[in-house]
Amino acid sequence: MLHWLKHYRRALLPGDISAGLVVAMMMIPQGMAYAMVAGLPPVVGLYASIMPPVVYALFGSSMTQSVGPMAIISLMTAAAIGPLAAPGSTLAAVLAAQLALVAGATLLLCGLLRMGFLANFFSRPVMSGFTVGSAIVIAFDQVHTLLGVPIADVLKLHVHLPSALLGVGSLALLLLARRYLAGVLRACGLPPPAADIGAKLAPMLVVLGGIALMATTGLHNLGVRTTGTVPAGLPGLNLATSSAHWPALLQPGLLIGFMVFLMSMSAAQSLAQKRNEKLVSNHELIGLGAANVASALSGGFPVTGSLSRSAVNFAAGANTPLASLITAALLACALLAPTGWLALLPLPVLAATIIVAVLGMLELGIVRTAWSYDRSDVLAWAATCLGVLALGVEAGVIVGVALSMGTLIWRASRPHIAVLGRIAGSEHFRNIERYPAATQPELLILRIDANLFFGNVESVSERIECELRTHQSARDLLLVMTAVSSIDTTALYALAELNQSLKRRKIGLHLAEVKGPVMDRLRHSDLLRDLNGKLFLSTAMACDHIQTGQQ
Amino acid sequence: MLHWLKHYRRALLPGDISAGLVVAMMMIPQGMAYAMVAGLPPVVGLYASIMPPVVYALFGSSMTQSVGPMAIISLMTAAAIGPLAAPGSTLAAVLAAQLALVAGATLLLCGLLRMGFLANFFSRPVMSGFTVGSAIVIAFDQVHTLLGVPIADVLKLHVHLPSALLGVGSLALLLLARRYLAGVLRACGLPPPAADIGAKLAPMLVVLGGIALMATTGLHNLGVRTTGTVPAGLPGLNLATSSAHWPALLQPGLLIGFMVFLMSMSAAQSLAQKRNEKLVSNHELIGLGAANVASALSGGFPVTGSLSRSAVNFAAGANTPLASLITAALLACALLAPTGWLALLPLPVLAATIIVAVLGMLELGIVRTAWSYDRSDVLAWAATCLGVLALGVEAGVIVGVALSMGTLIWRASRPHIAVLGRIAGSEHFRNIERYPAATQPELLILRIDANLFFGNVESVSERIECELRTHQSARDLLLVMTAVSSIDTTALYALAELNQSLKRRKIGLHLAEVKGPVMDRLRHSDLLRDLNGKLFLSTAMACDHIQTGQQ
Repeated sequence: MLHWLKHYRRALLPGDISAGLVVAMMMIPQGMAYAMVAGLPPVVGLYASIMPPVVYALFGSSMTQSVGPMAIISLMTAAAIGPLAAPGSTLAAVLAAQLALVAGATLLLCGLLRMGFLANFFSRPVMSGFTVGSAIVIAFDQVHTLLGVPIADVLKLHVHLPSALLGVGSLALLLLARRYLAGVLRACGLPPPAADIGAKLAPMLVVLGGIALMATTGLHNLGVRTTGTVPAGLPGLNLATSSAHWPALLQPGLLIGFMVFLMSMSAAQSLAQKRNEKLVSNHELIGLGAANVASALSGGFPVTGSLSRSAVNFAAGANTPLASLITAALLACALLAPTGWLALLPLPVLAATIIVAVLGMLELGIVRTAWSYDRSDVLAWAATCLGVLALGVEAGVIVGVALSMGTLIWRASRPHIAVLGRIAGSEHFRNIERYPAATQPELLILRIDANLFFGNVESVSERIECELRTHQSARDLLLVMTAVSSIDTTALYALAELNQSLKRRKIGLHLAEVKGPVMDRLRHSDLLRDLNGKLFLSTAMACDHIQTGQQ
Repeated sequence: MLHWLKHYRRALLPGDISAGLVVAMMMIPQGMAYAMVAGLPPVVGLYASIMPPVVYALFGSSMTQSVGPMAIISLMTAAAIGPLAAPGSTLAAVLAAQLALVAGATLLLCGLLRMGFLANFFSRPVMSGFTVGSAIVIAFDQVHTLLGVPIADVLKLHVHLPSALLGVGSLALLLLARRYLAGVLRACGLPPPAADIGAKLAPMLVVLGGIALMATTGLHNLGVRTTGTVPAGLPGLNLATSSAHWPALLQPGLLIGFMVFLMSMSAAQSLAQKRNEKLVSNHELIGLGAANVASALSGGFPVTGSLSRSAVNFAAGANTPLASLITAALLACALLAPTGWLALLPLPVLAATIIVAVLGMLELGIVRTAWSYDRSDVLAWAATCLGVLALGVEAGVIVGVALSMGTLIWRASRPHIAVLGRIAGSEHFRNIERYPAATQPELLILRIDANLFFGNVESVSERIECELRTHQSARDLLLVMTAVSSIDTTALYALAELNQSLKRRKIGLHLAEVKGPVMDRLRHSDLLRDLNGKLFLSTAMACDHIQTGQQ
């Protein structure tokens, strides 16, 4: 905790200041936009950008993570509180803070129980499918705001022309900026890194342009909706909860806590690796948990580390969490200054920034890779994506976990087992399907290429029985355990049953090359005591000894 | 399908007849008792014992499985329909059949999609914890029936004396029979197998005794409750459903289908292994699905293969599913004959048979084994058992799956990675912690002892970085892949990122002894194309080559 502060050197300061500034410029439109995604007043998004990064700087372990509002977590918040409170209402804000508290408490608890391994519950294809599905949902949700009409009217192809012009115009500007602004800035003589970062500020510029347009022209009178009054001043530290809603918020809060952790870990990992920094998943749980509790206490909503913002923070030179503290301070200043200008921000422009932001999440590279490498991962990707689109974002998380686990158990249920033969004149034994290796009719040698656990041991038993049926003359079975690094209790039972079954059929069961850690556990088990055969250090020794015995 | 009938020999008939008879004698009290557990009229249990075994005989793959009512599935049925309909009501019976239809359709669908791997989702300790928890719930639920009073009165220590005497007396008789009857029968000259089977008929004898007592004495007038009229005649083939209840039955139906499959597979597997028969999990899904649909169509409720009954079927000589057909025929005869005598069966006696039956499920051997072999499995056992007791049987299934998967991911997140050194003067490389093997300061050799997948690849990356930090002088990293039989898409990405990171730090990344199937997949991946090092067939070759390059 605060390890970075103890070793702070003045040389790190310029990077942290510039990153702090740049991220603050991103954070103002993002905070307001993601509050809108969550169905909350815009100021809630700004509140959620102040205390959480400060608290994360104290407890988190990533140097460059930018913690605050994030599109997908906002979508999950909307899904959780939407059925309980009207969008933009006071109750919605109360429930959002309460939800952050549930998520934060969950994360803190998991952190204290050292459950960082939870980050391993999603495969990357499933995570990508979830992200893409969520991005599509978010983008579609913004189309009616972009066009300035209720959703029903969009389907009838009605639009509010001034809003639509402003919205689609902003969208076009943002898309052009995304494509060309960095190049233009470079052409203007900016060094490439600065140009790239400058291009990231396009949303803030478009938002400022939109506000200026509203202030100087009569668009307001034409019915273009704006964010409305943003109260000045810092959020108070208090927590208003609705006691009747605890039960309804429990499950969504748990799921949001889980996704906060997954999203943040994947962002932090990719950045930590670039600088060869170490990330401690249990510290991350604590840092994110504390950040969400802080968000709840300061009128915010669930927050997480955002990959896009953290990448800008990193690129803009952030060396330590001081950058986040500077961002938070700047946002606090913005709220302490007069906020009348923010009230004029046209909603269609904000919707355009959201759509462009989530377009960046439509990353399909992993689908291409998986298509040529492992098609079942493409299936998992598609199923998760469709799950989010068809069943909603909460069900999507559950579908994602189920699919990750399903793929895992399905793969585990097809373990690789090789029949081994001896390479003539050597001590080497190899898979007879890949090498010209000689087998003996009375001795079947199988190499099990998987750790044995409840998910695969029945399949392994079946494969062994199947090989025994095709090698009817075998009087001894030798299992080569080079690739077996663990055997769980379920597998121990199954092996003991196999041993009993072979004993009844008068077939010897021998083990060779059992690894140290496996042997340590097996030593006192019933399996070894009752083993209907012997234990050998090497396959060659086993083979020689068994054949001598058979003759 | 019906493979067994084509090859039927007359020699198999005596065993099938005796098993069919014995199981029918078990099935009558069990069917009525488990219907009571499910909160249904007793006759429903008899209906569920006729068509399901017949249909399973057509589609299933186990030769000795006895499909019909089973205690835990009945408990799950009660949990599902209890909140929707009064116990014993017509609606309860309709919903129970509907539930069997949902479960059966789920199983059929899974069978058609060849999802037999679903059987691998529970570890044995978790299954045992679930069974023990359910058995305790079932036994406690029967105590008030045993004592002849409502539950509230049991807590006030009130009992209905005649019922309690009858119930506790039956319980004592059944417990004595369980302990001593087989021995007594042997002492009377019966051969041991016959004596063991005879002892299994004690529940039927006690039930008959109870009926005789009710018929001949005035116990009825003293307020001892009986099962009441059991309508004579076979069940009609029809399906009355309550369309309003489909949504409420969907999730319980899915969970019941899942547990039907797990319970039946574990029973069938233990028997198939004894006779070295082959079990096809996808056929089992179809067989059990069809049996449950048949149960739904013939006025029954969810059914499954019962371990206790199947073991008796097996021991009594069942050679083929003909035994089950004989059982079904006998039960049909019992329903076609006058059923007035069944109406006199006293409920306290039935409760006693249930309690003794579930006592047999309190098998704690696995806890002892796991205690000395792997404590985390004891934790999973206890958590599942407590989950059933505290949250109910449905939540218990979910807790069980979550714990199995949690244990799996938790174990995967601590992969075994060994630093290798060369055994002096040999081509062999071994773990330096276990062997006196020599390392080189500029070459770090790591053997990864796990398949690489999303659940462990981050931990593997972390371990590798950690080893690199402790071996600062290493200019090359060699990964020995003997134990890696698969690399999924997520792991491929993580390895590619590790490769990029090492490239930036000017550390070579080499792979040795990559297995055939892994190599087949990797061949066209970006990882190999961009690999910041070489690929070697053996560790010794890699070691020699890299050291030559470094000099």
